[in-house]
Amino acid sequence: MAEKITPRSQDFSQWYQDIVLQAKLADYSPVKGCMVIRPNGYGIWERIQRELDARIKAAGVRNAYFPLFIPESFLKKEAEHVEGFAPQCAVVTYAGAKDLEEKLVVRPTSETIINSMFAKWIHSYRDLPLLINQWANVVRWEMRTRLFLRTTEFLWQEGHTCHATPEEAELFTRKMLQVYVEFSENVLAMPVIPGLKTESEKFAGALRTYCIEAMMQDKKALQAGTSHNLADNFAKSFETKFLDADGKQKTVHQTSWGVSTRLIGGLIMTHSDDKGMVTPPMVAPLHAVIVPIYAKDPNPSRVTEACEQLRRAILDHPDVRALPHPVVIDIDRDETKQPGWKFHEYELQGVPVRFELGPKDLDKGQCVIARRDSGEKQFIPLANAPGVFASTMVDMQRSLLARAKAFRDSNIKTVDSYDEFKARIEEGGFFRVSWCNDRALEEKIKAETKATVRCLELGPDYQPIVEDRPCTFSGKKGPNVRALFARSY
Amino acid sequence: MAEKITPRSQDFSQWYQDIVLQAKLADYSPVKGCMVIRPNGYGIWERIQRELDARIKAAGVRNAYFPLFIPESFLKKEAEHVEGFAPQCAVVTYAGAKDLEEKLVVRPTSETIINSMFAKWIHSYRDLPLLINQWANVVRWEMRTRLFLRTTEFLWQEGHTCHATPEEAELFTRKMLQVYVEFSENVLAMPVIPGLKTESEKFAGALRTYCIEAMMQDKKALQAGTSHNLADNFAKSFETKFLDADGKQKTVHQTSWGVSTRLIGGLIMTHSDDKGMVTPPMVAPLHAVIVPIYAKDPNPSRVTEACEQLRRAILDHPDVRALPHPVVIDIDRDETKQPGWKFHEYELQGVPVRFELGPKDLDKGQCVIARRDSGEKQFIPLANAPGVFASTMVDMQRSLLARAKAFRDSNIKTVDSYDEFKARIEEGGFFRVSWCNDRALEEKIKAETKATVRCLELGPDYQPIVEDRPCTFSGKKGPNVRALFARSY
Repeated sequence: MAEKITPRSQDFSQWYQDIVLQAKLADYSPVKGCMVIRPNGYGIWERIQRELDARIKAAGVRNAYFPLFIPESFLKKEAEHVEGFAPQCAVVTYAGAKDLEEKLVVRPTSETIINSMFAKWIHSYRDLPLLINQWANVVRWEMRTRLFLRTTEFLWQEGHTCHATPEEAELFTRKMLQVYVEFSENVLAMPVIPGLKTESEKFAGALRTYCIEAMMQDKKALQAGTSHNLADNFAKSFETKFLDADGKQKTVHQTSWGVSTRLIGGLIMTHSDDKGMVTPPMVAPLHAVIVPIYAKDPNPSRVTEACEQLRRAILDHPDVRALPHPVVIDIDRDETKQPGWKFHEYELQGVPVRFELGPKDLDKGQCVIARRDSGEKQFIPLANAPGVFASTMVDMQRSLLARAKAFRDSNIKTVDSYDEFKARIEEGGFFRVSWCNDRALEEKIKAETKATVRCLELGPDYQPIVEDRPCTFSGKKGPNVRALFARSY
Repeated sequence: MAEKITPRSQDFSQWYQDIVLQAKLADYSPVKGCMVIRPNGYGIWERIQRELDARIKAAGVRNAYFPLFIPESFLKKEAEHVEGFAPQCAVVTYAGAKDLEEKLVVRPTSETIINSMFAKWIHSYRDLPLLINQWANVVRWEMRTRLFLRTTEFLWQEGHTCHATPEEAELFTRKMLQVYVEFSENVLAMPVIPGLKTESEKFAGALRTYCIEAMMQDKKALQAGTSHNLADNFAKSFETKFLDADGKQKTVHQTSWGVSTRLIGGLIMTHSDDKGMVTPPMVAPLHAVIVPIYAKDPNPSRVTEACEQLRRAILDHPDVRALPHPVVIDIDRDETKQPGWKFHEYELQGVPVRFELGPKDLDKGQCVIARRDSGEKQFIPLANAPGVFASTMVDMQRSLLARAKAFRDSNIKTVDSYDEFKARIEEGGFFRVSWCNDRALEEKIKAETKATVRCLELGPDYQPIVEDRPCTFSGKKGPNVRALFARSY
C-alpha cells in the first residue's frame, strides 16, 4: 500500500509496471505470459466493451461466438496466414484422456474457423453483407510479455464481415477504422493517427491493413487497433461463395478488425502520472469517492448522513444524468484508515474526483472537490457540488484528450536524412518522412535504429499521401509516400 | 427456410434440434462437440448476461479475468477435484513451436488458478470477504454433445468468493442460489426447484452443492445452475490464509457458483412450441417486428411511413420506457418476401409480437397485433398500439412463467414403492419420494431406470426436509429425506 511509484523520468517501464500492480489493474499469473485482470482493470474493460459494442452494433454488426479451437488443417489453408501465426500457436494434442486425431490450435485469431461457417451460411447475394463480431479470448505465444501490452492470452473483439464486391469490403474496412479513431479519441481520450501498414507489417492473409497509432508519454508508438481488407484470400481457401443477382457464382470479399485489452495499457501510458493512474471519466469504473472527515466530531453520524445526501444529490442531478456514461460514486467510511491514506490510495487508483466532507465544512455548507488530472482542489458550496461534478466530468474528458493531443503533436518531427534520423531517434517521438517503401531498407532501418515504419499516412481518399521530395532514407526521387517512423511497443 | 419443424409429440429431441438450427440460434462447428452461437442465440446470451451481471454486482461481487490455462500440477492439488475433472480435460502440450515443460489444461473450471491468486492477494481479515466473478469460456471434453445443453466448450459465469468463517461461506452459497432462483423465474420465466445435491452428484472438491432444477416440456429435468460451499478444501491446498482480528492465521472458506449457455437450451425446452422458438420478453433480442402490407397500394410510401411512426410511437411511450428491459423493434421492408413468409419466419425465431399494417388498416386507423405465445391476433386502434404493446410484454413474461409453473407442478408425482416408480418412470416428471440417501442404492436406481436423484428438497432452514415415512425405494424406516428423482439432461 505504501509502496512508491517509480517516477516516469527515472524508469518509464518500471513506472508502468508499478501503476498496473499498485493500482490493482492486473497481476502476473502462474502461467507464463498470462495475466490476471483484476477488478479495477476489468472494470475499465467493461466500459470499453460497452462503448465500443454500441458503436459496432450501430454499424449493423451482430455478435456471435465461434469455437476456441481451430483444427490445424484450417490454419494451413491460407498460406501466408499459417506462416504468420504458426510460430505463436498453443496446441491441444490430447483431450478426454486420448490423443487427438487432428491437433487443435487455440485460436490466435478466427478468420479460418469463421470462414468455415460463413461458407455454410452464405448462399445468395441476399445473405450479404454478413456482419459479425465476437468478444473473445485469444492466445499467441509470446517470448517477451508485458501486462496488458503483450500477453500470451488477451481479450479482444474481432469483427468479420462478408461483402459482395471488393469495393464494399474496402469501404467497410475504412468504416471500422473510423469507428476506432472516433472511439479512441472520444472514449479513451487517446488521440490516434490512422494509417496503412506496409507489406511487411500487414496482417498475415490480408490485402491491406489499416491501423491506428497512438503516442505514449515516453514518445514511443502503440498500435492500438487494426482493420484489414482481406479481399477474397480466405474466401477462396474456404470457398465462401454466393450466387449473385446476375446468376453467377462469386467469391465474397471480406474484412476483419480488432482491438484488445492492450488498449488499457495505452490508456495508462497516455494519461497517468507519477502519483498513479489517471482514468478518463468515460471508462472509469468509479467516478468519485466521498471521504468523510470525522475529525473527532462528537456527532459523526451527521457527517455520514451529509455524505450520503451529497452522493444522492449528485446521482439525481439532471446534468449528471445527462452525462454520456453511467456514474458510480462511493463513500469510504472505513474508520481504520486515515483520510490522508485514502486520498493517496484513490489518487493511485485514478478515481477522477474526490470529495472531502468534515464537520467544519458542514457548518459552512461546503465541501472540498479534488480533481485527479490537474490535482486542483477547491472549496465549493454543497449545493453546487452536483453541477460542478458534472462539468468536471465533461471538462476532464476533454482536457485529457487535448493534453494528449498537444503532447503528441509537439513530438511529431521532420528530418531530412537518415543521418539526422539516427542522430535524433533517441529523442523519441514520431518522425514524419518521405519514404520509398522499400522492404529491404525497412529491415535495415529497424536493425540499425530499432525504429519501424508505424504507418503510411492517409489522404482523404484513404490512399497514402504522395511525397514529391526524395526519400528521407534512401534519397530515391519522388513520388514517394509519407510515413511515420518510431520506436514502438 | 421452408423446412418443417418436427412436432414435439413425434420426436422431442428432433424438435429441439430443429428449433436451434432453423431459428438460427446455434450451429454445429467443424470442431467435435463445439458449437457456434449464432447472432439470434448470442443476442439471448447478451440479455442473460446483462440481467444476471446486474444481480451479481448487486450482491457486492466484482468481475475479473483469470487465465484460460491451468498448470497440470494445480489441478492435482485438490484430490477429489482432479479425479472429477481429469477425464474431461483438453491439454496443451506444445506452444510457440516447443514442447512445454509443464502441460497446460484448458480450464474446465477455475477454482485452482483463482486460488493461486487469492493466496497472493489475501493477507488480513480486512481483505475479506473477497467476492469475484468471471464471464468466460470453459472446456470439458464430452462424448455425447447436444447444442447448448452439453458442449465441449461453453460460455458461463463462475463466481468465486472467500470468507472469514464457515458460516459466512454457507450463507453466501445460499445467497447466490437464491439469486439464481429469482433470475430463472423473473428473467427466464423458467420455474426452478432449489435443492441440495447428494454426495455422488456434488461438485468435485465441494463440501455441499446446491442446485436449481427445471422441468422441460418432455418432463425431463435440467440442472440449470449450481452453487457450491467449498469449505476450506481448495484454500488448504493453496494455502489461502489470512491473519484474523484475533491475531491468528486462518484458512479462508470459499464458495463458487455458475450458470452457463445451457440456460438457452432450458429456455427453448421450457417455452417453445411446434411453430418454433418462444422467447420471454426479458431475454428477447428483438421484441416486435412490424410487417408492412403493401397489397399493391398505389402509394406504398404511406404504409412505410405509418410503420415508422408506429415504431417511434411505441419506443417513445412512457409505459414502454418503463419496461424492465430495453425494447428493440424492427420493420421488415424486404419486398422480395411475402408477408405470409415473414409471419412464419418471425414465429419460428420467437419474436414476441408482430404488427401488421396495410393500406386498409391505415384507412381505418388500426393495425393487427399478433402475440407469439398464445397465437392471439387482434385489430387495435393505432393510437392504442404502444400501450397494448407494453402490457403485452408484461403479460407475456408473466404468463409464460405461470404456464411453465402449472405444467411443472402438475408433473410432480408421488409414488409409494420402487415397483410403482419403475412402472411409472416412463410417464416422465419429477417423483417426490422419501429417500434413505444410500449411495449404492442411488447407483442401482440409475442403472435400472435411468433416473437420478435430482436434489434433496430444502426447508426454510436450507436443510433437507425430513421425511418420517419409510424410504420409497429401500423401505428403510425414517427419518429419511425428501428427494426428487427424474430422468434428466
